[in-house]
Amino acid sequence: MNQDGLLVNLQNPTITVRVFLFKIMSNKNFIKRSIVREKISELKSNKFSFEINRIQLPNGHEGEYGYIKHPGAALAVPITKENKVIILRQYRFAVSRYLLEFPAGTLEIGETPINSIKREIQEETGFSANKWDELGTLVPAPGYADEEIYLFLARDLNKLNSEVQGDLDEDIEVLILDPYELDNLISSGDEILDAKTVTAWFRAKQFLDKL
Amino acid sequence: MNQDGLLVNLQNPTITVRVFLFKIMSNKNFIKRSIVREKISELKSNKFSFEINRIQLPNGHEGEYGYIKHPGAALAVPITKENKVIILRQYRFAVSRYLLEFPAGTLEIGETPINSIKREIQEETGFSANKWDELGTLVPAPGYADEEIYLFLARDLNKLNSEVQGDLDEDIEVLILDPYELDNLISSGDEILDAKTVTAWFRAKQFLDKL
Repeated sequence: MNQDGLLVNLQNPTITVRVFLFKIMSNKNFIKRSIVREKISELKSNKFSFEINRIQLPNGHEGEYGYIKHPGAALAVPITKENKVIILRQYRFAVSRYLLEFPAGTLEIGETPINSIKREIQEETGFSANKWDELGTLVPAPGYADEEIYLFLARDLNKLNSEVQGDLDEDIEVLILDPYELDNLISSGDEILDAKTVTAWFRAKQFLDKL
Repeated sequence: MNQDGLLVNLQNPTITVRVFLFKIMSNKNFIKRSIVREKISELKSNKFSFEINRIQLPNGHEGEYGYIKHPGAALAVPITKENKVIILRQYRFAVSRYLLEFPAGTLEIGETPINSIKREIQEETGFSANKWDELGTLVPAPGYADEEIYLFLARDLNKLNSEVQGDLDEDIEVLILDPYELDNLISSGDEILDAKTVTAWFRAKQFLDKL
């Protein structure tokens, strides 16, 4: 692939070239599977496994690559009737920190993303939602994980009477913020940002701005 | 930690409670290490390793958790003198797709984030940048990776005369977009979103809006 040639075309763009490029470059069906030549090693963890395989990439290059095989997850951006945002302050052992994160959870076997997040939002925030909109899909770490996270906007919230009941190893507090407070926290420099949360917030703002 | 009690406080906020909560909840130094009780297994990949350990969380709960130990990475949002955005269309075997991603790379041993990204932007885009601003740090997958990605805004770009020289296994094309085109691609629903890229773009827009 001649990257330099492409760059020259784009620096001197003609409409034809650009439309053509957009058609082929921005298609989510532009999928190319790599070929697993050999499974070299594997470790199973609770909700996912880690594999090292000998892989042939679509460009012909072959190498050994390790990655996490993950069942996928679903996430909600919950907006209250007063236009406030519900977000969690949650402990993550891998980064030894309490992060700001939207409610999310790993898909269970046979569970659809929307059913998964309808369960998770109740368990993690103590609210249920009646109005759901799709905000697309993200990949958090495409260099070493196949996880896809399905994003949803959750509105028309109702507070449940029951206690919030998370997993034993979840260390979570529920915050209710004005949208500008969340923007300020993201820009403050005081937060290590959770990428799925900021991406979902970006999408939610795009969606809500168009209403 | 009484989650329900906190929720009640926030639903009936007083300034005192909220300022207090913000002070303790939004501090990036609010770090609590977990205790590794026992290393159970480990696999080494090219640029990172995967470990399963028996870990005691700060709330006392003990369990076996697997995660990727990663040296960290750096990412640039490159803005040309004509206020266009440089972005890559890049193949990722783990998700079998070509994603839109900002130039980024894993830190080499002893390399600072800024030095790393100054090298990567040249290798991946064929541009160098003279003006650099910090946009903070993100974590892409805090549920199963300790990776932190340092975000930078790269301006005052100059096209290099040399060919773009990536790694053998990199399958990359360089795109130059108007900011509104990138916004439209993110909102189109046609893209599986790369979370680090959308998060960095959110931060870049916040930064540029304040100029």
